[in-house]
Amino acid sequence: MPTILILNGPNLNLLGQRQPEIYGADTLDDVADQCRAVVGDAAELRFAQSNHEGALVDLIQEARGTTDAIVINPGAYSHTSVAILDALNAYDGAVIEVHISNIHKREAFRHHSYVSGRADAVIAGLGVEGYAAALRRLMQLLS
Amino acid sequence: MPTILILNGPNLNLLGQRQPEIYGADTLDDVADQCRAVVGDAAELRFAQSNHEGALVDLIQEARGTTDAIVINPGAYSHTSVAILDALNAYDGAVIEVHISNIHKREAFRHHSYVSGRADAVIAGLGVEGYAAALRRLMQLLS
Amino acid sequence: MPTILILNGPNLNLLGQRQPEIYGADTLDDVADQCRAVVGDAAELRFAQSNHEGALVDLIQEARGTTDAIVINPGAYSHTSVAILDALNAYDGAVIEVHISNIHKREAFRHHSYVSGRADAVIAGLGVEGYAAALRRLMQLLS
Amino acid sequence: MPTILILNGPNLNLLGQRQPEIYGADTLDDVADQCRAVVGDAAELRFAQSNHEGALVDLIQEARGTTDAIVINPGAYSHTSVAILDALNAYDGAVIEVHISNIHKREAFRHHSYVSGRADAVIAGLGVEGYAAALRRLMQLLS
Amino acid sequence: MPTILILNGPNLNLLGQRQPEIYGADTLDDVADQCRAVVGDAAELRFAQSNHEGALVDLIQEARGTTDAIVINPGAYSHTSVAILDALNAYDGAVIEVHISNIHKREAFRHHSYVSGRADAVIAGLGVEGYAAALRRLMQLLS
Amino acid sequence: MPTILILNGPNLNLLGQRQPEIYGADTLDDVADQCRAVVGDAAELRFAQSNHEGALVDLIQEARGTTDAIVINPGAYSHTSVAILDALNAYDGAVIEVHISNIHKREAFRHHSYVSGRADAVIAGLGVEGYAAALRRLMQLLS
Amino acid sequence: MPTILILNGPNLNLLGQRQPEIYGADTLDDVADQCRAVVGDAAELRFAQSNHEGALVDLIQEARGTTDAIVINPGAYSHTSVAILDALNAYDGAVIEVHISNIHKREAFRHHSYVSGRADAVIAGLGVEGYAAALRRLMQLLS
Amino acid sequence: MPTILILNGPNLNLLGQRQPEIYGADTLDDVADQCRAVVGDAAELRFAQSNHEGALVDLIQEARGTTDAIVINPGAYSHTSVAILDALNAYDGAVIEVHISNIHKREAFRHHSYVSGRADAVIAGLGVEGYAAALRRLMQLLS
Amino acid sequence: MPTILILNGPNLNLLGQRQPEIYGADTLDDVADQCRAVVGDAAELRFAQSNHEGALVDLIQEARGTTDAIVINPGAYSHTSVAILDALNAYDGAVIEVHISNIHKREAFRHHSYVSGRADAVIAGLGVEGYAAALRRLMQLLS
Amino acid sequence: MPTILILNGPNLNLLGQRQPEIYGADTLDDVADQCRAVVGDAAELRFAQSNHEGALVDLIQEARGTTDAIVINPGAYSHTSVAILDALNAYDGAVIEVHISNIHKREAFRHHSYVSGRADAVIAGLGVEGYAAALRRLMQLLS
Amino acid sequence: MPTILILNGPNLNLLGQRQPEIYGADTLDDVADQCRAVVGDAAELRFAQSNHEGALVDLIQEARGTTDAIVINPGAYSHTSVAILDALNAYDGAVIEVHISNIHKREAFRHHSYVSGRADAVIAGLGVEGYAAALRRLMQLLS
Amino acid sequence: MPTILILNGPNLNLLGQRQPEIYGADTLDDVADQCRAVVGDAAELRFAQSNHEGALVDLIQEARGTTDAIVINPGAYSHTSVAILDALNAYDGAVIEVHISNIHKREAFRHHSYVSGRADAVIAGLGVEGYAAALRRLMQLLS
Repeated sequence: MPTILILNGPNLNLLGQRQPEIYGADTLDDVADQCRAVVGDAAELRFAQSNHEGALVDLIQEARGTTDAIVINPGAYSHTSVAILDALNAYDGAVIEVHISNIHKREAFRHHSYVSGRADAVIAGLGVEGYAAALRRLMQLLS
Repeated sequence: MPTILILNGPNLNLLGQRQPEIYGADTLDDVADQCRAVVGDAAELRFAQSNHEGALVDLIQEARGTTDAIVINPGAYSHTSVAILDALNAYDGAVIEVHISNIHKREAFRHHSYVSGRADAVIAGLGVEGYAAALRRLMQLLS
Repeated sequence: MPTILILNGPNLNLLGQRQPEIYGADTLDDVADQCRAVVGDAAELRFAQSNHEGALVDLIQEARGTTDAIVINPGAYSHTSVAILDALNAYDGAVIEVHISNIHKREAFRHHSYVSGRADAVIAGLGVEGYAAALRRLMQLLS
Repeated sequence: MPTILILNGPNLNLLGQRQPEIYGADTLDDVADQCRAVVGDAAELRFAQSNHEGALVDLIQEARGTTDAIVINPGAYSHTSVAILDALNAYDGAVIEVHISNIHKREAFRHHSYVSGRADAVIAGLGVEGYAAALRRLMQLLS
Repeated sequence: MPTILILNGPNLNLLGQRQPEIYGADTLDDVADQCRAVVGDAAELRFAQSNHEGALVDLIQEARGTTDAIVINPGAYSHTSVAILDALNAYDGAVIEVHISNIHKREAFRHHSYVSGRADAVIAGLGVEGYAAALRRLMQLLS
Repeated sequence: MPTILILNGPNLNLLGQRQPEIYGADTLDDVADQCRAVVGDAAELRFAQSNHEGALVDLIQEARGTTDAIVINPGAYSHTSVAILDALNAYDGAVIEVHISNIHKREAFRHHSYVSGRADAVIAGLGVEGYAAALRRLMQLLS
Repeated sequence: MPTILILNGPNLNLLGQRQPEIYGADTLDDVADQCRAVVGDAAELRFAQSNHEGALVDLIQEARGTTDAIVINPGAYSHTSVAILDALNAYDGAVIEVHISNIHKREAFRHHSYVSGRADAVIAGLGVEGYAAALRRLMQLLS
Repeated sequence: MPTILILNGPNLNLLGQRQPEIYGADTLDDVADQCRAVVGDAAELRFAQSNHEGALVDLIQEARGTTDAIVINPGAYSHTSVAILDALNAYDGAVIEVHISNIHKREAFRHHSYVSGRADAVIAGLGVEGYAAALRRLMQLLS
Repeated sequence: MPTILILNGPNLNLLGQRQPEIYGADTLDDVADQCRAVVGDAAELRFAQSNHEGALVDLIQEARGTTDAIVINPGAYSHTSVAILDALNAYDGAVIEVHISNIHKREAFRHHSYVSGRADAVIAGLGVEGYAAALRRLMQLLS
Repeated sequence: MPTILILNGPNLNLLGQRQPEIYGADTLDDVADQCRAVVGDAAELRFAQSNHEGALVDLIQEARGTTDAIVINPGAYSHTSVAILDALNAYDGAVIEVHISNIHKREAFRHHSYVSGRADAVIAGLGVEGYAAALRRLMQLLS
Repeated sequence: MPTILILNGPNLNLLGQRQPEIYGADTLDDVADQCRAVVGDAAELRFAQSNHEGALVDLIQEARGTTDAIVINPGAYSHTSVAILDALNAYDGAVIEVHISNIHKREAFRHHSYVSGRADAVIAGLGVEGYAAALRRLMQLLS
Repeated sequence: MPTILILNGPNLNLLGQRQPEIYGADTLDDVADQCRAVVGDAAELRFAQSNHEGALVDLIQEARGTTDAIVINPGAYSHTSVAILDALNAYDGAVIEVHISNIHKREAFRHHSYVSGRADAVIAGLGVEGYAAALRRLMQLLS
């Protein structure tokens, strides 16, 4: 049974509380429930969130050899972190990048993500449904 | 019952034949079948493809008032067409932009899409599964 | 009696329907009426609109030797079409470029028009009155 | 009866003498006559010209509450003056920017005008007829 | 007893009247009163305002040898005037630059100020309180 | 009684020891004393400093709902952290950004701060007196 | 016997009429004659021209599997069309890009061609002789 | 006998007082003496200086038809004034631009001068001797 | 006896495991052995690694007054961290920057390192031998 | 009988040895033979090659008045030499620039050639056949 | 008696022959005569010209310790040679850069000179009189 | 026994004399002695220096097939020479680039080296010790 890490970056612990007109009312726990509903018993899901760039690097390193794929919402670190990119470059499994909002409609500095050059796919603007879409794709790829 | 237009831009008529290592082996007909499988009887799907920028503008204009949402893969016109953007600006329904490959891994001129600033969501790199993911989202939004 | 072509680019067939808060309530037919009111019997006016860049090139080529001047609203192709510029470069008569809205108040990519480097004059933001202003000027020049 | 200020910037006092192949043979007095011919008794026109950026700011400030609209040819200050832009930002009436020549055919530094982002309309290349076109539009808007 | 010049640039004579939602309801006279309240008898304050770049240069030159410090709000000239920078470069006393609004939240061309490279300190967005903050600092430095 | 967080970023724990010719001889404890002297009993002050971007994000999140305003000196993270900007975007209270030195006199990469686009005011170059100026302003706003 | 498509883009139907000081007096029919003279019976030549970007895409697609090489003068679409580049990317045969004038002596926007990154060779400024030079090279490569 | 205007821009009235390590100890009066020594009775010299951009424009306009050449040190307006460039464009005589210091050794924004594109010659870094060098050249040209 | 800190940034804990075709098969422990072999008893070496930018700042601060020099491989933070630069700016000893691979052969965003502007020397592409080269140089400088 | 100089720049003496997968197996002597085969007795050909920019300048100067045209492959100096451009600017005959490989498919710094702005034609990617194509064109022009 | 080197760069050996409408009819020998006329017996002049960047570097190195000043017209190498700049950086005497034409009126790539950042003065557009002006200044400085 | 070329570019013949505060007091002969001390009898060293770009190209070409590696300090040509890069591209052995000073601390135009994209390693700022460090690495690679 494959194992998939769902990794969330800075300020995503506030999901559901922060600017709900942009990010919606679901919390990260709700997201976890929706993710589990998608994969059912077909995969083991692990969830992690951190506001610390270094902690995200640590978590990706730990996923080496212990997980088959990563769904990552790098949040603000998308735009500034080469360290996370390098950690993903050292990871062999599939990677899908998810953004809840459509970052292309926001400030110009949010249009570029270092992670996108490593990711296998990028989803932006599907709301929290983006995580489910990423998981469905990974289930296809891993089966 | 909602109506959704699935609109494909230049060279996508070659899908399945062109560079299958990038775009996969499915044809546009296969994509249509997969799309119908996703929505079943819950929506009417219309399919169109053109290599002509002006024809795509025409098709989007015709969708005004006759469809509830558009899934668009603008292909190469993503990067060069303000006319398609303007047609979408004159369209009231939801719009989801789909790219089969992850355009962020390709040449720099493919990283920017005029359509993304209008789209509600952008999906890149999910392969032809991207259309299904877009439709699932639209079915949520339209219900 | 001079002949003048009034040529409109993509999405201008929606005039009066599309974003009336920007473009006003007049349709292209209303514009034609207003244009005829300006020139009266002093000039023959021809009207054309297309969403197709190539069709606009065709129309400009046909105007060579058959018309004395062109009033052109290239719409979105202002910003992306070298082909229309080249067609106008091959045209000997006077050319006036008209934009209904003030493009300098909109997105940065709308501030540059390839056509402006060829046009004799550029009018933006006068609403549909811009066509009349262009015609008045042409009547001066042609008489 | 509305009052309209026609304001001309640096070097426009030389109109008719300076580079007539570009600017034509009409003087500012001729322009004033043509303007009066357009509006007749339907509006009061005031004329001013200065080579001093600060004096133009003063004149725009004085127009607050005493005039209904401004036709401004900011000349060279179009490209360099934020102060004039700010004075216009503090003015409530309609503003139309006029350039006698088509600035888009000249040096690149003449393609951008700070004033255009505030103006309701921009006219370039109509020769001194541009003032008349601006006034006709203002008479429409003010009536 | 030290002497301090409080110098205001273009359009600041409209303070209290112009866009009060941005600049507040206080006038320059109110600002002068607040400034005097800060320094009391501990310093002599001189106030000047001009819409003319050259007049501001003149005023700064006159302050050489006759004042100990300058509080300057260069307004729009912040972004375009090397002449004012040069005049300040020829001034030996302390200089503090004040902007009533937070210029970093406004258009990109307002983010750079030539004066900032010469100023000892820069204050933006404190409202008219910025003048008082500048004076408090100068009183520290001058004592 | 309002509560205000004074938050300092990386390397500011060295204040008073590091490059005193730039930053002065006062330590962060001295700053705290000066801040308390400004507000007296009229506000509760909380102080925090971290060299960790993620820890600063955590601290800003904790300030949501528990403090009324933040005075932040983001230090080097001003120029590189979108994560701190996003945390501040999720914070409802007033925010004032303080830099001890005038960052506009230093290397070009220090001239832009992500935080400035969110802050209500920005103070640079007042030395440690900048914190006091920020607090005086906040006391005005909060009363 | 190999088959070669000679494909001409927008405004090239005017060859011989348009700006003969730049493009010379030969028409496209003259070019065809010269091309046939070069290859004689050693290859089948097909000729096509269109002002429509989409039609050029169609023609390139039709050349897949039916021709061995393409000589293309994309005209103005050289500088703006990713769609033509993509169609050529989906074509397996040799491609030589021809420009009649030396585009490097003209406006800066004519110096870059999307097609050049795909073409096997690029010829500019040889006049209509460029087609013959391209064919001679293709005859070498195809034999 | 030819007449030559020696025109100095902002802050040059401080010559001899301002930053003598850069600009030297000579005053504008000394410069005038040195200029007269160069031309002797062979030309009439007129001197003017202003800190006001508009006044410099006025002075150049007045030189039309009344002087044969201009030596101009535009000071800080070199880098920001299109109005002075335009005034010089409307002047028929020879123009030589002088900078006392070598502007190419200073801040990047001092490397570009609008005036240089109009001037017949540019001299920088010769100290006040630059004026004499300019006059010697003009005497050659005018004889 | 001098003390030297060898400090490694993010993902360097994976050395020997991550992309050995780029980084080689040696681990950080192997590097430490090689470093000790270079200095023998002539210096005390301290080793540290962290994936956390803030932790690296902490470690550099702790090195103030307790070590004589730093060999730093900032990894991905080279390209994004002003905070590490500032910590090094507050450090008085010699600093040598080491990159195992030649960063100039990789993506453009890896060509710039904030640390290089502070470092006394920069070594890239010597493999893990770069640490030894740095230490040999430091032993020269410290003796 | 016309005389034509075939001039090759740096590293082209290695032709046939260097990277034959890019440049082919022909040597400069083979190229000379092919060139002679093209012109036969109809022109005198002179051949020169140098790795020295200055020597290439010398050779072009010597061609003034002694040759009727130049075929130049400036190699790496295409991208960096204004001196060669200036020498060609001082040459009256026809100039054709040849590159063996298609420089538009290589690194970005190879896309611009100073020589192209002076050349009458530019040929890239025809392999050594490019020299023959250039000579055929020159024989047309010279006859 | 001081010794001054007058050093001319590439293509200046053609002076008087090359584009006389730009560079005039005087040859380098005429320039030498004019230079000698300026200094008379008050200085020893040495003249050198080369088309080779390396030879110019050699000549500047030889001037170390044997000449008191250099007048250099680096010609095209102004815009491309750091090596000449470095040779001048290793030279202790005064350096004046001369351009015969006004490089600011020509192509943009001629507006920047590496040498200007080292030169004490820069003269452009005085024609060959520029050398005399440079020598007059050097005689002042050296006496 | 391997053979290694140590190649030095322009102005390095002045080593020890030129700006010793930057480059130190050692001459190229001292460097040669130090290099020989590093390799002893284990390799043959050849030394060359030239101020001529073309001569450096010649020397690199001669090293093809006759030496096993190159240590190159391209000096100023690092930043401007594609010809040297191309010569190195045609060389099969290992290449290490050495700069005596840390070029990243100097002017921006010294931060980019064309050679670095070809070199196996880059060393900057180790002083003349950089040559020794390069040789040690090459001895590892060659054994």
